[in-house]
Amino acid sequence: MRLIADVMGADASPETLAPAFVQGAREAGIELTLCGDADKIRACLTEDDLSFVTVCHAESVITMEDSAMSAVKKKKDSSMATALRLLKEGEGDVVISAGNTGALVTGASVIVGRLEGMKTAAIGTILPLSTPTLLMDSGASINLLPENLVQFAHLGSAYMKAIFGMEEARVGLVNNGAEETKGTELYRTAHEMLKNEEGIRFVGNIEGRDVPFGRCDVLLCDGFVGNIVLKLSEGFGFYFSGILKQGLLSSLRSKFAAMLLKPQLKDLRKKLDYTEYGGAPILGIAAPVIKAHGASSPKAIVSAVKMAARVAESDFFRRARAND
Amino acid sequence: MRLIADVMGADASPETLAPAFVQGAREAGIELTLCGDADKIRACLTEDDLSFVTVCHAESVITMEDSAMSAVKKKKDSSMATALRLLKEGEGDVVISAGNTGALVTGASVIVGRLEGMKTAAIGTILPLSTPTLLMDSGASINLLPENLVQFAHLGSAYMKAIFGMEEARVGLVNNGAEETKGTELYRTAHEMLKNEEGIRFVGNIEGRDVPFGRCDVLLCDGFVGNIVLKLSEGFGFYFSGILKQGLLSSLRSKFAAMLLKPQLKDLRKKLDYTEYGGAPILGIAAPVIKAHGASSPKAIVSAVKMAARVAESDFFRRARAND
Repeated sequence: MRLIADVMGADASPETLAPAFVQGAREAGIELTLCGDADKIRACLTEDDLSFVTVCHAESVITMEDSAMSAVKKKKDSSMATALRLLKEGEGDVVISAGNTGALVTGASVIVGRLEGMKTAAIGTILPLSTPTLLMDSGASINLLPENLVQFAHLGSAYMKAIFGMEEARVGLVNNGAEETKGTELYRTAHEMLKNEEGIRFVGNIEGRDVPFGRCDVLLCDGFVGNIVLKLSEGFGFYFSGILKQGLLSSLRSKFAAMLLKPQLKDLRKKLDYTEYGGAPILGIAAPVIKAHGASSPKAIVSAVKMAARVAESDFFRRARAND
Repeated sequence: MRLIADVMGADASPETLAPAFVQGAREAGIELTLCGDADKIRACLTEDDLSFVTVCHAESVITMEDSAMSAVKKKKDSSMATALRLLKEGEGDVVISAGNTGALVTGASVIVGRLEGMKTAAIGTILPLSTPTLLMDSGASINLLPENLVQFAHLGSAYMKAIFGMEEARVGLVNNGAEETKGTELYRTAHEMLKNEEGIRFVGNIEGRDVPFGRCDVLLCDGFVGNIVLKLSEGFGFYFSGILKQGLLSSLRSKFAAMLLKPQLKDLRKKLDYTEYGGAPILGIAAPVIKAHGASSPKAIVSAVKMAARVAESDFFRRARAND
């Protein structure tokens, strides 16, 4: 298996990303192609790294300010577009990029192409809550139709089966109340359609209050709401870690208690840490494309590489194609 | 000052609510009218309570399943409609209800009436984060126009000035990115209008990740997104309390540490506790109407009564009227 990694245009520098991808690929036991500024990439790798890595030079970089169409239109020679083209041409099995999300989603849809019948793509992010919950769409598509959410329900269920071995994932719909008449027209219509859809296990609306408590395995919403849910979850993780730390450091006695609590605190930090699950797959694309967090740490990249290997090895893409 | 309290139709029983309202009114030093089933109310109050409380009997109850129009149409003799009518007629200064939110918002808009010029009402909820943040609309109106959000910006700023003494509240817009081109059409248009609006201090888009960190004092969004933000915040508060407790109880050593941390844990619980700030005002109504949480504990009701007294005493309503 070969991973194609785009190391440019993220908040993290290529000098951070390239060695982290190398480490991840080594740990996962897979081959690696790095796309980006070849000089920069070579400068931050060892001789030993370079003997094992293919470097694919790209002239330009898609920045966070570039438009969603940039990989397809203005910057066809960018590292991101190059990585996606290599995947399309079979020169690798999975792409990871920590760059511009909109450009990656659009680039993947156009260059790699969508699964047959898929009307739009979604970012699926695993929320590390009581049980792993796939939030989709967590930011790809701002304007959705109810039928897109129904497609996401099938795709998300297939993903949770392939990656987490869930036989019949419970599908929930984010909403502002449990009753089926709740929500905007998109959510009311989607609820009605999901209720009557065969082949998924729809468990109804999920209120914000219930999101952390594992009431469903696939949590559906549009990309606007999904982005807010995802980032709010991250934000509250940071916030609670912060006020807990503040409390623990507030006196000598509390510092002593914190020492006694070391294993519990480590476990807690892990539960609040969104980097554990690595990247987020762009679901609905014909081959695996993974979005890593823009400000990914080396640890997050290593974790994303392992997740990517798992996704590419799974029969998710075969299964999803067969479902069409 | 006289508080009019609707004690029916909440998740909490009248037997829980009525004594809590009495206690709250006593602590706040204000007069009290209780609306609801007079027999039930009298049965759970002492002689001493009854000498100080006015009981106003209402024949029917608006349940959580009733429509938003119920206080205005089918159940004009309900405790909620009665409470709102008493407010309108000057028989009291502020209403609190823990009943059906939609019915309370619509009932308040029609029976009490909106402030002149206000196109729609919003629920304003104080999120007890790094600094108190007014989330509005947190659930009154699912479908909004950009101009509604601009009105909320003025109203929210006036509220934070009157209640928290903030001279120039920072107004932020919930969004899926910091850039002004982010979000659905509603949010993009609202951003453009808010940027050019005089008399408010607009600080731009607020991403979910930044919500807990006090980047603004008034956080604007539609009621669908606001309900999700509010309940997710509550849910994560419970979730983190739960995993922290689990960690603290996991061994003898951790239980000992928890004992040492008693003051810090108490403070932490307080920071995660949304009942501290009591009820949420329905902003845009010509007189103060406060929504208390459906499952309010006696403590939450006492806290809501104190907040209600503060709102009714403030010059918020005079000021808001003068702004028209």
